Amino acid sequence: MEKRVQDYSKEILKIIRSNTSPAVMGGRLQDYHENDLADVMPKLTVQERCKLYRILDTDMLSDIFEYTDEENAAEYLNEMDVRKAAAILSRMETDALADVLNKVEKTKKKILIDLLEPEVRRDVEMIASFDEDEIGSRMTTNYIVITDKLTVKQAMSSLIEQAAKNDNISTIFVVTEQQKFYGAINLKELIIARRDDLLENLVVTSYPYVYAEENIDECIEELKDYSEDSIPVLDNDNQLLGVITSASIIDLVDDEMGDDYAKLAGLTAEEDLKEPLKESMKKRLPWLIILLGLGMVVSSVVGIFEKVVTALPIIMCFQSLILDMAGNVGTQSLAVTIRVLMDESLTGKQKLELVWKEMRIGLCNGGLLGILSFALIGLYIYLFKGKTLLFSYAVSGCIGVALLLAMLISSAVGTCIPLFFKKINIDPAVASGPLITTVNDLVAVITYYGLSWLFLLKMLNLAG
Amino acid sequence: MEKRVQDYSKEILKIIRSNTSPAVMGGRLQDYHENDLADVMPKLTVQERCKLYRILDTDMLSDIFEYTDEENAAEYLNEMDVRKAAAILSRMETDALADVLNKVEKTKKKILIDLLEPEVRRDVEMIASFDEDEIGSRMTTNYIVITDKLTVKQAMSSLIEQAAKNDNISTIFVVTEQQKFYGAINLKELIIARRDDLLENLVVTSYPYVYAEENIDECIEELKDYSEDSIPVLDNDNQLLGVITSASIIDLVDDEMGDDYAKLAGLTAEEDLKEPLKESMKKRLPWLIILLGLGMVVSSVVGIFEKVVTALPIIMCFQSLILDMAGNVGTQSLAVTIRVLMDESLTGKQKLELVWKEMRIGLCNGGLLGILSFALIGLYIYLFKGKTLLFSYAVSGCIGVALLLAMLISSAVGTCIPLFFKKINIDPAVASGPLITTVNDLVAVITYYGLSWLFLLKMLNLAG
Repeated sequence: MEKRVQDYSKEILKIIRSNTSPAVMGGRLQDYHENDLADVMPKLTVQERCKLYRILDTDMLSDIFEYTDEENAAEYLNEMDVRKAAAILSRMETDALADVLNKVEKTKKKILIDLLEPEVRRDVEMIASFDEDEIGSRMTTNYIVITDKLTVKQAMSSLIEQAAKNDNISTIFVVTEQQKFYGAINLKELIIARRDDLLENLVVTSYPYVYAEENIDECIEELKDYSEDSIPVLDNDNQLLGVITSASIIDLVDDEMGDDYAKLAGLTAEEDLKEPLKESMKKRLPWLIILLGLGMVVSSVVGIFEKVVTALPIIMCFQSLILDMAGNVGTQSLAVTIRVLMDESLTGKQKLELVWKEMRIGLCNGGLLGILSFALIGLYIYLFKGKTLLFSYAVSGCIGVALLLAMLISSAVGTCIPLFFKKINIDPAVASGPLITTVNDLVAVITYYGLSWLFLLKMLNLAG
Repeated sequence: MEKRVQDYSKEILKIIRSNTSPAVMGGRLQDYHENDLADVMPKLTVQERCKLYRILDTDMLSDIFEYTDEENAAEYLNEMDVRKAAAILSRMETDALADVLNKVEKTKKKILIDLLEPEVRRDVEMIASFDEDEIGSRMTTNYIVITDKLTVKQAMSSLIEQAAKNDNISTIFVVTEQQKFYGAINLKELIIARRDDLLENLVVTSYPYVYAEENIDECIEELKDYSEDSIPVLDNDNQLLGVITSASIIDLVDDEMGDDYAKLAGLTAEEDLKEPLKESMKKRLPWLIILLGLGMVVSSVVGIFEKVVTALPIIMCFQSLILDMAGNVGTQSLAVTIRVLMDESLTGKQKLELVWKEMRIGLCNGGLLGILSFALIGLYIYLFKGKTLLFSYAVSGCIGVALLLAMLISSAVGTCIPLFFKKINIDPAVASGPLITTVNDLVAVITYYGLSWLFLLKMLNLAG
């Protein structure tokens, strides 16, 4: 994508490559956003980067590292003194820090972990203890927490104290003396409160939260709906472990959609540009092998109708048309159903309505396209294949009716199969694709050749 | 989706339906998150909702309305006094307010707009002046702004004053006396600054920004990368017009992916559960008609090979297998390419690498599947169709080679076509689907029947 937002790279490069004093250069660089500085890093030589590590303070460097992709960040850490590296890591958001550490070579990783601030080390180990698909693996411990017995004034000074070390300050979390989650205060409310107001009145005690062990896919939509800057994550004893920030939610939404998108196209997971050939093959082969197997099933069903084709070779030409259209309609219904299932929890009645609506769409679209192909294909056969008008329109009538039926059934199949998979707790996006293709192919083949056999051969007694 | 996060609906309903005094009820309801209160609203009777409008203060109601979907919100506004409605609207985020107003019936809308606070009215009109795909249509004017000549102390009191009316306080925007955008201060920095620090040192002057007239699709990836709570939106004179919040960015990312997902499945845009039949048909028909037309082209090419099929009816059975596999491989390459194009700006060299990689994957997977189908299909024909071993493996050899070639070519087509569309500035997700299906179908048909004719009929002189 083109850079539409102001591109600061050139300016930043110029500053870094100039000969100004470290103090001046540091001051100038602080005027830029960390994301823009991070974008420039790969374009620098190792020497230039080392200059930056000396000039910028730890806070700024840790922010830059949060915007750097993990592999690059791990590489940069290797370029600097190990103590400096540990100091930078200690200041990062815990989830980002854990991601970077995963890319660092093993012995070095151990050294770095030993050098982290003890509190940070504990947090990293805790976050690493969660599975990749548990929400706990995506949280950060970088938040403000106060106890519930403070006054507004005490709360404010506690905030100022903690703000120096923690970035996510817009929501302040409140815990009881036993460290149980009690509620949250919007920073805005705290700022406009008078000093003698009761803190109690500011706390939202039924603030939304998630448990660290919850599955990401199952709570991401809910988290998105709250559109809060941070949502607290609790352990099973209701103690506050960390927070999920809106930046993490954006990433998670993006990942979730990306994966579903990939699955719809027959990949087991999303691919990356830099991924080695073998990895990419592994993501694609499973589906292709399943699809090949299912394709063979379809082929052997087509084989049953070999005699129909021998008697009437012309109908074979339009097989691909019927099969493709059934597949297209099925995929449309599948995509709509998966998206609806992703966003909403449907009642049984709504599910029936969805199936009913999809079938009506299939019927209407199928009717329109059926008439269209009846008219056009009949004309085509009459003009280009040198058949009689009756023969031409008998064949195209058969195609039109087969198209209508195939599209109607495919819509129903494309809706019911994902609903069924969802019901038995299998991800509909993974499971539905190949099954729908095959079922639709079979339906289309049987409808088409069955109709041709019955109508053209048995009733009209036409032959090639 | 099941509600995984704590479901507060029942508790809230119970409170509203209890007979406690308004003051106590108001106090209790304030302990809940506005999103949870918004979820309860449709479950209430009109009388119960009217009770709420009296009990809750304007601030809280406006927050609840921000979490309510626009159509419901418009309905609720009808249930209350028009002055109260205008007061609630005046407090909402400007983008949400504009969305709700669009759903209100025309004459009522006029009255409401007249009753809005003058400043809010001006903002709404400004936001309405932008196109739906311009970033200006998604901004809010609910932010904190100060001029660049203040001290830290003055800045802090200006913040406290503005915070009462504005929700997005985590970034404070700085403008010059001429109202030009100057930079931004992280609230955290301001809070931990000492009163005698220079405000100048806190300002990031090269803070990212967008122009209101920029196209959403073209800057959304960039905005996402900054993971800021709010990004300033400027007019063409570099004056600050509003901000894009992270909640809006989440919505935009979700919309963008949803649309691409829909397009991959052959829909012109994402569909909604509540949408009328006609709307849904309109989103699906265009592609289906195009696909039908292209399907006819493929059918007439198959027609050329009618004689081959008449001589060797068995090869017809496996046509669907080859076509489906070519289609599947092409869709995989297409999906990977579109996602890569969405996230990154590729150099010419990287594009060549991508095509080269996809072709190698196509070759490797095609080789594996070709060998597999050579072995299995040969055995199948020998055992179930009563042909000689030579004949069986000659046919399956032909199928294996055709599969390999079709998969190789489909990978290349599935990568090159979206790259080409991107180059000529057409959305690759819209344009690539049907073209790739057709090109791959044609390639597969010609390869398969061509090979069969050449190898089986001409060289081996086999016939059915």
